Order: sequence, then C-alpha cells, then structure tokens
Amino acid sequence: MTQIAEAELRTRMARAVREVRETNPLAPSITNTVTQNFVANAQLATGGSAAMVYLPDEAECVAGLGGAVYINLGTLLPVYAETVPACARACAEGDTPWVLDPVGVGIGSLRTRLIQEVRQWPPAIVRGNASEIIAVAELWGLNAARVDTQGPRGVDAADSVEAARTAAVAIARFTGGAVAVSGPADLVTDGTVIVRAEGGSPLMCSVTGSGCSLGGVATVYACVADPFTAALTATTAYNLAGARAAARCEGPGSFAVAFLDELSHIIPEEAADAPLTFEAA
Amino acid sequence: MTQIAEAELRTRMARAVREVRETNPLAPSITNTVTQNFVANAQLATGGSAAMVYLPDEAECVAGLGGAVYINLGTLLPVYAETVPACARACAEGDTPWVLDPVGVGIGSLRTRLIQEVRQWPPAIVRGNASEIIAVAELWGLNAARVDTQGPRGVDAADSVEAARTAAVAIARFTGGAVAVSGPADLVTDGTVIVRAEGGSPLMCSVTGSGCSLGGVATVYACVADPFTAALTATTAYNLAGARAAARCEGPGSFAVAFLDELSHIIPEEAADAPLTFEAA
Amino acid sequence: MTQIAEAELRTRMARAVREVRETNPLAPSITNTVTQNFVANAQLATGGSAAMVYLPDEAECVAGLGGAVYINLGTLLPVYAETVPACARACAEGDTPWVLDPVGVGIGSLRTRLIQEVRQWPPAIVRGNASEIIAVAELWGLNAARVDTQGPRGVDAADSVEAARTAAVAIARFTGGAVAVSGPADLVTDGTVIVRAEGGSPLMCSVTGSGCSLGGVATVYACVADPFTAALTATTAYNLAGARAAARCEGPGSFAVAFLDELSHIIPEEAADAPLTFEAA
Repeated sequence: MTQIAEAELRTRMARAVREVRETNPLAPSITNTVTQNFVANAQLATGGSAAMVYLPDEAECVAGLGGAVYINLGTLLPVYAETVPACARACAEGDTPWVLDPVGVGIGSLRTRLIQEVRQWPPAIVRGNASEIIAVAELWGLNAARVDTQGPRGVDAADSVEAARTAAVAIARFTGGAVAVSGPADLVTDGTVIVRAEGGSPLMCSVTGSGCSLGGVATVYACVADPFTAALTATTAYNLAGARAAARCEGPGSFAVAFLDELSHIIPEEAADAPLTFEAA
Repeated sequence: MTQIAEAELRTRMARAVREVRETNPLAPSITNTVTQNFVANAQLATGGSAAMVYLPDEAECVAGLGGAVYINLGTLLPVYAETVPACARACAEGDTPWVLDPVGVGIGSLRTRLIQEVRQWPPAIVRGNASEIIAVAELWGLNAARVDTQGPRGVDAADSVEAARTAAVAIARFTGGAVAVSGPADLVTDGTVIVRAEGGSPLMCSVTGSGCSLGGVATVYACVADPFTAALTATTAYNLAGARAAARCEGPGSFAVAFLDELSHIIPEEAADAPLTFEAA
Repeated sequence: MTQIAEAELRTRMARAVREVRETNPLAPSITNTVTQNFVANAQLATGGSAAMVYLPDEAECVAGLGGAVYINLGTLLPVYAETVPACARACAEGDTPWVLDPVGVGIGSLRTRLIQEVRQWPPAIVRGNASEIIAVAELWGLNAARVDTQGPRGVDAADSVEAARTAAVAIARFTGGAVAVSGPADLVTDGTVIVRAEGGSPLMCSVTGSGCSLGGVATVYACVADPFTAALTATTAYNLAGARAAARCEGPGSFAVAFLDELSHIIPEEAADAPLTFEAA
C-alpha cells in the first residue's frame, strides 16, 4: 500500500469522527440483551444515536431510518429467526450497510443457520474475535486456508488474531467490505490491505460488551464512511479510549466508566495519527 | 394558577420525596431491555423498589402488588401484544395508576396498536419526548391543534417541547392525569396548569435511558402522590441530579454514575424549592 | 464443627479464589435481562468467563461447555418454559453443577411450575433471599418447620434470614449441595454446618442485581470447588468487596462501580481470613 493511500485513509478516519459528531447519525441495532446498554452508551459517546428492536417489521422499519444497521447474534430469542433475515434483506434492498457480529457462533443451531442465511445479503463489516471470524469463513464456504483452529469457547476466542488472517481476507473479498478481528493487537482488512492496530488495554476483556460495543460504534461510523474506514476508525477510537481509561481506573468497574468518558473525547486528529501498520493482504 | 395552589403543589412534592424514602414503595415495570438496569437503579436511588416482568399473568400479578406500574414500549417482544393490554387492564380494574412511556412510537405496527388499545384504560401519566407526545395525541384522536411535526426519528425527538404543548394538554384532559414532555426545558401539565422546569444537563442526552428512568421514577412517586405531583417531582429530581452530576463528571460514563449518586441525595426541601414556572393551560 | 473442618473449608475458599483467576472458567447463565450485564461483569471481575443464552438447544450446549451453570428466574420469557428444564436436565446428565436463583417466586404461574419441575435435577446451590428460600422449600414439599412467613414482596424479601434457616437446611439436605440466604447477615449451609457471614453494606440493596450477581459469582466458584465452598467464597468475596466499596463511594452509582473494582482485587488469603461463624445445623 502506498503512502498516499495510507494518508488518504487517515484523512477519511478523521473525517468520520468529525462527521459523526456533527450529524448525530442513527445506527439501529438488533443486538444482544447482555451488553445492549453498553453498546448504546458507546454509540452515544461517539456522537451517534441508538435504537434497539426485536420484531421483524420494526427491524425493517429501522433499516430504512438508519444510516447503517448493527446485527449482533449474542443472545438469540425465538423471534430472531425471522428478524435477522428480515433486517439483512431490508438493508440489502435499501443499500444500507450493515455490520455483522457473529457472537458465540457454534452455540446451538440457530446462530449457524442465520449466518448461512444472511450470506446472500453480505454485510459491509464483519466484526468478531478470531474464532468467530474463522467460523464465519467456514460457514460461508470461503476458501480460507485451514489452520489448526480451536473453535470458540463460549463467547471468547480460543484462536489468535493471526490464525484468523486468511479467513478475514477471504470474508472481505467475498463481501466487498471490511473485516475487523479483535484481539491483543487488532487486524482490520478490506481484502487488499491489512492494518494492524495496537493499543487498548487488557482490561477491555474484563468488561462485558467491549467487542459488541466496538461493533456498534463501527456501525455509527459506517453511517458516514466506507466500511474499511468505519472499521478502522472504530478500532482506533477503542484503542485510544481503552489505553487512556486504563491509565486512570482502579479496576474493571471504573475502567468501563472511564472508557465511555474517553470515547466521548476522541478528536478527529487523534484518529488520523493513531499507530497503525499497513501491509498488502 | 394562584400562589396558594402553587405552594400546595410544592408541599406535595416535598411530601412525595419523603414518603418514598420512608415507605420504599414497589413500582413494577413492563419496560425495555436496553435501559431496564438503569431504570431499576434510578428507582432504587429515589427510595423505591423495582420489579420487571414480561409474561401476561406476571404483569397482572405485579399490577396488584405495586403502588403504581410503569409500561415502557421501547423494545417490544412478541409477548408484549398480550402483556401490555393485560397489565393496563389490571391496573384499571384495581385502581392502580400506571405510567405510559410511548418510546419509539411509529416504528413498526405493534407499538401503534398497543397505544390505541390501552386508550380504554387511561394511564395516570404519559411521559415522552415531544414527538412521542404528539404521536400519542394523534393516535388517540384527541383534538390537538395540528402543528408542523417532524415525527419521531428512531427513539429521539425531532420536535420541540413547545410544539407538543397542545398535545400534552389534550392528553392530560383526556386521561384526567398528567403529561410530562422531556426536552431542554421540560413541560408538565395536568390539563389545567402548565409547569416548565429548567435545569438538568445536555449530558442527559448522552446516556441511554435518561427518559425511560424518568418514567420509572415518576412511577415510584405515583405510588404515594397524585399523578401531577408525581410527574413534577420526578422531573424536578432529575433536573437537580442532572445539573449536579454534570458539574462533577468527566464525560457521559461518569455522568451516569454521578447522576444515580445525586438522585439518592435529593431531599424533600430541594424538590419544593425547585425553579419552576407555572401558568394556566 | 471441628476447628480442623473449619480450617479445611477456609483453605478451600482460598484455593477457589486462586484457581478461578488462574483458569478463567466459563460459567454460562440463563438469567434475567435486568441484571445480566452486572452479573457478567461480576463474573469477569472474579476471573471467570460469562455467556448468557435463551434458547433450549443453546442452553443444552453451554451446559456442556461450562464448568457450572447459573439459572436465574428473575425475568421469565415464554421460551424459558422449555429452556430452564432443558438446561437443568442437561446439567444433571452431564454432572455439571448448577445454581438456582428463584428470584420473584410467587409472581405468576411459570416460576412456580419451573421450580417444581427442576426438583428432579437438584441444583448444587440455591441462592436467594429469605422469602425465596422459604418458598422453594415449600414448593419442593420439604419438611421445613413452618414459620410465620410474609411471602415475597415483588423481588425483595419480606422475611428475615433467621426465618429461612430451617428451610435452607432442608433444601441443602435434599439436594446434597449448599444453600445461601442473602440478608443483612448472610447464612450459608450444606445441611450439616451453618455459616454466618457479616460484612457487606446496606448500599448493596440500592443496586439492582446484587443478589443475582452473587449467584453468578457462586457459579464461577462452583466451576472449581464443591458447592458449599463455592457459595461461601462468593458470599465472602461479596461482603469484603461491598464493605470496601461502601467506604469509598458517594452513593449507589459509584458504589456499583467501586464494587466491581474491589471484587477484582480480592485475594485468596482474604477469603480464607473472612469473619465467619460456624455452628452445627
């Protein structure tokens, strides 16, 4: 990747941060009950607006109202069997980008079925931990080089971020969008470029919803930016806010509070200057 | 409104704050999943007790146990089609006041249907943002002077508080209770008097559930006071706690924490002395 | 109880704290929507891992993945009629200990039916307030000496911890596990020994989910320890963290935050040295 392309990407990241604060875009969600309060508060902290729904016709409605939509499979209810496909289809038909967070793929049968079903309406961004990204690539039959994967362990990753690299690139090439793999060092790709983002804090793993809310915030940025920029901006904002919150907290409780504060203080220039390393995919 | 009537209302507000702390009234809810933790914690901070349920027979049961009941339509699940009417009917039959929070009216068909259906068991208090209050007046066929409304935008208001004035008065006259319209300056009415309450903080819009928890706290006060007093007391407590929390926080995360702290410290005399302006409706 | 037995129990408690931090055990939950974020964060703060599900086959799946499972009946959804029995049965068949939190027993019919149904797959730990523990003993037809009980009042206890003593012992003898009764002074028993634990803070009653998250944390310890040790360790950790958080907070909002911080700092030696009083049941 040329230096010019990198500079252009950084400019777009700064613009995404600014534009969200100026336009307060609505980023509706179908998301899990455990972390949805934290997701909504993180979306609000960046300058976006949140709305969570469960019913199929409400999902279709908000897909039309929102700039981008977040679908997180963390806690499926029976009605999700209808709501998730209805929402993904409505997004596809309305050219609304949507973000898939395949939390806990491998637990039960409905998650698997839903991920297979939404393949026909590809998401603009897939965000997950390494095990989840590998599982999605396999469920979608993408020709990812198989590596020795551990599979998910509940909702946590058993695989390293590097182990998901091939799967992430394959998914991004299939969707034409971006993939963000969360881990000690994050990996974000659009299928041609791989960006690695360091920072954050181990404390993020001590707060439930760190990953989910990153997906929710990526959706906010996807209201105003292309998928790759949106995924990178969210990842960067998280790493900055996470490191700063960790520096002034006394444990996971105060970390979560400080994290929302710091997220609300991120300025465009910081996003553009974040320590990222770029390489060809 | 006479000065004597205003003084009486302020006396009642102080009494409501005191009586809730002394009697710990139970204020059950049918409420949305996004903010119910914050609603419950706000109810506890004022001295009330919380209980959230989803099933129709459980809603009927808690309607009998509680001093007042909160029904918030924020995130409808399929079972709400039965639960919400069952709960409103049980409240009406048992003379238990209930509080309606028509969050997101306009999204999907069930919200609309439920609001129309519960018209026959009028709530003691309707709390919402300006767009939601205008929508309820229209759905109930109340003769509100039509203004140029924007309609809801997801769960946020697109209309100003003043634009909802006529609708608020019409609803209060229809129910015989009170209406609270949340906004930069809040408007509370019983259909004959309009009270405007200033204070609070713009940070309240950065915390999901500010409005929902105000509805939950109004329900706590409705356990011990008439609807107009309850709505005014909750609004006043929110404005005081919001302004104080804003003065000592570092962003939306610490604001929410400080807000609950401050809410737990409100004393009766403060509620009675709050800056409110009264006028005839 | 001999001093040697007490010393052995204290050694096991220290080992449970240490082993959870070293092995990060997965403790999945079927739990209520109001407090599940706080439950998950408390589980993470102790060093465990959380996963909440709703669907029957997902519950069976996580029962196989987890070291112990938490079933909390706080907010029943229609699908719980299938999910709760499926989960309890899967735990019994897989020799996975599970923890029952009979929140709000007495509200509606499904709670009652579920508690009766799971009697055939006895939980390793039952955790509740005094009224809930008395109600479970009655629903299970255990020969608890009847006392003048008040019955539950919504989700709060109307009975004293001492009033639930006989019921707690009867349940523990029936299940062969442990029972933890939460109150101003907690009571934990395995049916032969009764331990009373003081500490904590009245502020715990001002935070929704104090009890639920104690159940969730007991489940984390049950992944690595016998039920009696697990219940005692969780109770002790809560009392220590609660007292410390109360000493440095400014109200219920900052108490909840400080509580999670303090929970993450509990060290094995403290758990072993906690002020507990032992007597024969």
